[in-house]
Amino acid sequence: MTDQQTPIPTEKEQRATANEMPAQVLLEEQNAHLVEHFLEAIASDETSEASRQDFVSLSGLHPADFSDQIEQLSDEDRETLVSHAPGLITADVLAELEDEVVEEILPLLPAAQLAAAVSYLDNDDATQIIEEMEDEQREAVFDELDTEDRAILEASLEYGEETIGRLMQREFVAAPEFWTVGVTIDHMRETGEDLPDLFFNIYIVDPAFKPIGFISLSKLMRSKRDAQISDLMETKLTTINQDMDQEDAAYLFQKYHLISAPVVDEAGRIAGIMTIDDILEIVQTENTEDILALAGVSDSGLTDTAFSIVKARGPWLFINLLTAILASFVIAQFDYAISEIVALAVLMPIVASMGGNAGTQAMTVAVCAIAERDLTPKSAWRVVRREGLAAFLIGIIFAFALAIIAFVWFKDVQLAGVAFVAMIINHVFAGLAGVLVPLGIKRFGADPAVSSSVFVTTVTDVVGFFAFLGFATLILL
Amino acid sequence: MTDQQTPIPTEKEQRATANEMPAQVLLEEQNAHLVEHFLEAIASDETSEASRQDFVSLSGLHPADFSDQIEQLSDEDRETLVSHAPGLITADVLAELEDEVVEEILPLLPAAQLAAAVSYLDNDDATQIIEEMEDEQREAVFDELDTEDRAILEASLEYGEETIGRLMQREFVAAPEFWTVGVTIDHMRETGEDLPDLFFNIYIVDPAFKPIGFISLSKLMRSKRDAQISDLMETKLTTINQDMDQEDAAYLFQKYHLISAPVVDEAGRIAGIMTIDDILEIVQTENTEDILALAGVSDSGLTDTAFSIVKARGPWLFINLLTAILASFVIAQFDYAISEIVALAVLMPIVASMGGNAGTQAMTVAVCAIAERDLTPKSAWRVVRREGLAAFLIGIIFAFALAIIAFVWFKDVQLAGVAFVAMIINHVFAGLAGVLVPLGIKRFGADPAVSSSVFVTTVTDVVGFFAFLGFATLILL
Repeated sequence: MTDQQTPIPTEKEQRATANEMPAQVLLEEQNAHLVEHFLEAIASDETSEASRQDFVSLSGLHPADFSDQIEQLSDEDRETLVSHAPGLITADVLAELEDEVVEEILPLLPAAQLAAAVSYLDNDDATQIIEEMEDEQREAVFDELDTEDRAILEASLEYGEETIGRLMQREFVAAPEFWTVGVTIDHMRETGEDLPDLFFNIYIVDPAFKPIGFISLSKLMRSKRDAQISDLMETKLTTINQDMDQEDAAYLFQKYHLISAPVVDEAGRIAGIMTIDDILEIVQTENTEDILALAGVSDSGLTDTAFSIVKARGPWLFINLLTAILASFVIAQFDYAISEIVALAVLMPIVASMGGNAGTQAMTVAVCAIAERDLTPKSAWRVVRREGLAAFLIGIIFAFALAIIAFVWFKDVQLAGVAFVAMIINHVFAGLAGVLVPLGIKRFGADPAVSSSVFVTTVTDVVGFFAFLGFATLILL
Repeated sequence: MTDQQTPIPTEKEQRATANEMPAQVLLEEQNAHLVEHFLEAIASDETSEASRQDFVSLSGLHPADFSDQIEQLSDEDRETLVSHAPGLITADVLAELEDEVVEEILPLLPAAQLAAAVSYLDNDDATQIIEEMEDEQREAVFDELDTEDRAILEASLEYGEETIGRLMQREFVAAPEFWTVGVTIDHMRETGEDLPDLFFNIYIVDPAFKPIGFISLSKLMRSKRDAQISDLMETKLTTINQDMDQEDAAYLFQKYHLISAPVVDEAGRIAGIMTIDDILEIVQTENTEDILALAGVSDSGLTDTAFSIVKARGPWLFINLLTAILASFVIAQFDYAISEIVALAVLMPIVASMGGNAGTQAMTVAVCAIAERDLTPKSAWRVVRREGLAAFLIGIIFAFALAIIAFVWFKDVQLAGVAFVAMIINHVFAGLAGVLVPLGIKRFGADPAVSSSVFVTTVTDVVGFFAFLGFATLILL
């Protein structure tokens, strides 16, 4: 019961620290210590008793815990660990590791070990590992596989990355509609080994192998043995197409609260299943991608080198440089005004910055609402009106604030008035751009999360500087 | 098979449009049309045959589809629909609706209908609806409930919002370790009605009702009837504490790939279970919260009014106003330099903007890495060094770019040199602040997603203006 991997924290542990998961933190520290100790043992004498004991302890860790430790190591330590003890990198550990880390350690592992891992894993996990292999290694591993495993994996790899055809599980339980509960259960008892490790639903198929309904194991288990499964099955069936994008499949799971769903081919025949545990991973990945995309980062991972960081963030910064220059051109048009009234140079970044932030807020809300299918062409007009009104209200509030500050600071009513008007104008443009830009990008079939930011901040910078300096030129000079 | 709710798209439909989910889009259009038609029928004559037929069609929609349509309606249309046809708002539809919409329509529904809905739903869904009720209505609904349902719901409400105690399912299947597979299955057949609708695991408990292992239904089903469940059970058990935050529970599910987990009370006794479908919802909610928090939005929803938008975004904009003023003070210190060389006012926003964006990139990556427990105190030093190096490289690249632009534009080598140095300095500060600020906020026990942005952009604005204008004063004047 007091399992080492996931100890139930005692009350004392729970109160010992303000952290919400003391047991988890404690566990991670213990594991980190164990890995460190093992690395030291290898360094001093890799055949020592201490090193052997650590090996056994590390083998006993939950794969998710051990993979966390491997990810935390420096590149050198990771290479030492893997090359001295490849046996620790079991199939389950490989399945837990991040793609970048898998890519890094694959060359250190023998083909025979990888082949064994790949044929042990469910095809979706195996595919993810094979994706990371160099062509040569992949060939070597495929040569070691039996024909059936190889065929299944090659079939998966034929589909595009992030499509369901590649991600789906090709092992599932299907039954013809004329079976009874008893026959179905007996069939599962007999097939035993060939069934997937874990499944929740049995799919009922017609003679053409098209899914027509499903029955959950919990329902099957509670039903009488002589009942016909077609009488018990749920016929409201959401199917997923094998060439669907993973994000769309995840949306269907979330919307219809699916636990698993049959994947169908072009002819509507069942080809595999997707289960909610894989969807949870997809949702997490897609969400992280969206968060990073909104900040202009195309890719990330803790194992990145400084150079790959430059590559992941440079393009967006380059675009930002161009839009910043555009804003500078606007400023340059008013250089005479600035040289006459330096207060303009002092206040203009406030107008631009407030507009930029308000626009980013509106845009982020819109991007989330579009992703969750809450903001649609149908509700767009209502949302735009509401955002416009809100932006106007926000604009008035902060226009007052800035006008007061400008007056107190520079004792100039006209300057305060210019700041007031420019703030309201920029806020209204910010609010409208915040909704219209993502909607427009969506309409053109692109991902609003990826490119909205640059357009919105360009609008707020250009409008902010132009309105403030333009009015200043008109009124103050 | 061609179920109206979720038709399998024909090939023709698939090719008809570039959109990835034509079937889904088509379905939503049909449903929207149906709702519109119903509203028109109500408006002209609510007792008409047309209105009755629409009512029947709407009743047949999948609750998730119908709730989507209700969410898309304007406030007035929604009120008309619900008050004329409260019968359409079934328990399942209520469970699907967003909290804000539930709050809005609850006053339109009779207590008896709500009581029936609440006792029909699983306790976690029921709790979410009761949370949205005004005290008076809640009392009226509780009076209609039977004692047991009422006791379960009151127990859930005793836990804090977003804690597992409130969210967990209080119905689950537990078995003592001495039972055989056959006894366990027979027990489930007999209890039938009282079991949860859907479950995946059976928990094995000791005499003190503490969970000591679990067995999945798919394994139970494949095993021989006379096998002892304690021989088959999985003992690597991850338990969740009932006062745990939902985010931490979601982390454990993701890390250990859990499908369901027992929730234990202070004494370690099983009190309920959490299942992955609820976790998926939590992950989605928390992710949206994080995305919005990063943009400085405290709350959002499409049903918000313009005033609630002002409330949700105003605080962050106010803080931004303060930091923008701080940056302006820095600029004001160099007003003489600006009045002498207006080019400084033209170029300074570029330096600040590039630093701000680079800092936001680094910060967003760090916030994601902290949330996924990839960036920990242990790996912090390595990440900080790498970010610093990357920032330096990025700084050099864009410093060159800006220097060239400055030279071409203003034909001034010294000005170009000042821009060059200021860009590098600001990028290095941006990169370091991007990692150190979220790490520092995390160490103080706060959520890095909520407050990092303001500190990072303050650093990049202040450093950007100070470095650029300061060097300009030293060198150019």
